[in-house]
Amino acid sequence: MFDDILREKIEYINKGLNEFLSLTDRPEVLFEAMRYSVFAGGKRLRPVLCISTCELVGGNKEDALAVACAIEFIHTYSLIHDDLPAMDNDDLRRGKPTNHKVYGEAIAILAGDALLNYGFEVLIQQALNSSKSQNILKAADEIARAAGCRGMIAGQVVDLLSENREIGVDDLKFMHDHKTGALIRASILAGAIMGGADDDTLKKLSSYAEYLGFAFQVKDDILDILGDEMKIGKDIGSDMVNGKSTFVSVLGLQRSVDLINELTEKAINILDGFGEKGEFLKNLTQYMAERDS
Amino acid sequence: MFDDILREKIEYINKGLNEFLSLTDRPEVLFEAMRYSVFAGGKRLRPVLCISTCELVGGNKEDALAVACAIEFIHTYSLIHDDLPAMDNDDLRRGKPTNHKVYGEAIAILAGDALLNYGFEVLIQQALNSSKSQNILKAADEIARAAGCRGMIAGQVVDLLSENREIGVDDLKFMHDHKTGALIRASILAGAIMGGADDDTLKKLSSYAEYLGFAFQVKDDILDILGDEMKIGKDIGSDMVNGKSTFVSVLGLQRSVDLINELTEKAINILDGFGEKGEFLKNLTQYMAERDS
Repeated sequence: MFDDILREKIEYINKGLNEFLSLTDRPEVLFEAMRYSVFAGGKRLRPVLCISTCELVGGNKEDALAVACAIEFIHTYSLIHDDLPAMDNDDLRRGKPTNHKVYGEAIAILAGDALLNYGFEVLIQQALNSSKSQNILKAADEIARAAGCRGMIAGQVVDLLSENREIGVDDLKFMHDHKTGALIRASILAGAIMGGADDDTLKKLSSYAEYLGFAFQVKDDILDILGDEMKIGKDIGSDMVNGKSTFVSVLGLQRSVDLINELTEKAINILDGFGEKGEFLKNLTQYMAERDS
Repeated sequence: MFDDILREKIEYINKGLNEFLSLTDRPEVLFEAMRYSVFAGGKRLRPVLCISTCELVGGNKEDALAVACAIEFIHTYSLIHDDLPAMDNDDLRRGKPTNHKVYGEAIAILAGDALLNYGFEVLIQQALNSSKSQNILKAADEIARAAGCRGMIAGQVVDLLSENREIGVDDLKFMHDHKTGALIRASILAGAIMGGADDDTLKKLSSYAEYLGFAFQVKDDILDILGDEMKIGKDIGSDMVNGKSTFVSVLGLQRSVDLINELTEKAINILDGFGEKGEFLKNLTQYMAERDS
């Protein structure tokens, strides 16, 4: 049941992404490279959160689709740039060659730039042509700040600076809050704004987003390490993995698992206040805590 | 007289840029890298055009300042990314080490991303908090499209694809129109929109922008070649410079000079329609045709 609803939502989002990316202009390779990474098998977590919180507060998924797609374009650009040789230098993402492995570094940089820019093009176009300009602008403001130099990019820089040196739990939390948490929070708030949420509701969902985002980051660290362990037989809980501190290296595996459970419970408690309408997001929150990839 | 007004406008813009970039957040190196390239000695052509067309149509320079600054942030990001080793691999820009030479490739990529994002943050913030939301959104839409995958980035990709092969004048024009012309045109239109221009005026200024932008591109090619000639003694008018076709290589030097003069005259003729108020932009248009850097 939950699986079916999730699949439906993902299909709805994929259709939207495909429509927004049906650009047939020169030069072809640019549009191909943009589409390549957008359709390289993402879980669509952020856009699913976005349309789900819109529905949670009484809106329709249609109200949040453009905003959800813009967020996914911005998220995808960040992955393309993160994977670059000068950054994490990854050859594979979700089992597929990274953008620069397929199109070369120059096109990958530009395809990333283009997706970031396109996210804002979509938001601005929507705001310009909608009767709900003010809502879209409020959502766009959340997204822009979350993605920018005081959000995701700050987190990525701190991540880079933390390589090959141990950092404390505070720095680790700053890094993840900015690199990952900020855009997840923006997805949740932007959806709720598009659904017409009042300030009180936005405040509640902001707390929900904090718990969910934090749990997501700790889970990511655990999955990275379990993945590495399976691949290269590294000990779980070793202090440094790839020269980077993680929640597992700082807190240990058991404390990390406990933390995810605590945070997930708190997140779900907030959704209790939304009654029946909170059901899907509760299941999604649990699903994110239990995911194995 | 013209020099004084130009200097005043540039100072006004620099003050605005400085205020928008007075961000004191972590991590310091990111904000330092962003400021480094913004204050590395640009001519501020785009923001000067933006506030000048705002004044041309009866607005105040204050009305266009935020939009002008956003354009300069986006322009600066494009220079940082253009200079990267994977792109043009330039060590110097305007006589100063390029961003990646000072901060390394990873920070340069992220500082570029941050400036692009910040340009949109500024535009969205302004639209959200202004009584002139609709004008700002119209201006932001011009800028977003000009900077994106159907504008500047498309031009940059075509430029990359044209390396080491001769291209015709049509491809060359497509490349320059997108890489340089689009954002110049957007600067001119965005300023006029912020000044409250009607559709008829925007149409005239759109033609002005076409002539001015085209002349600017041809002039750039001439300056590149004269610069190269002085530096390395290369013949003027050689078919290929750095493996790239240019207007000079395709049309020859004399035809290129004639073309600049023709275009400049047409641009200035359009400004005649604005009477006294057109004086500064006429001088600027002439100045751009005669510039030696």
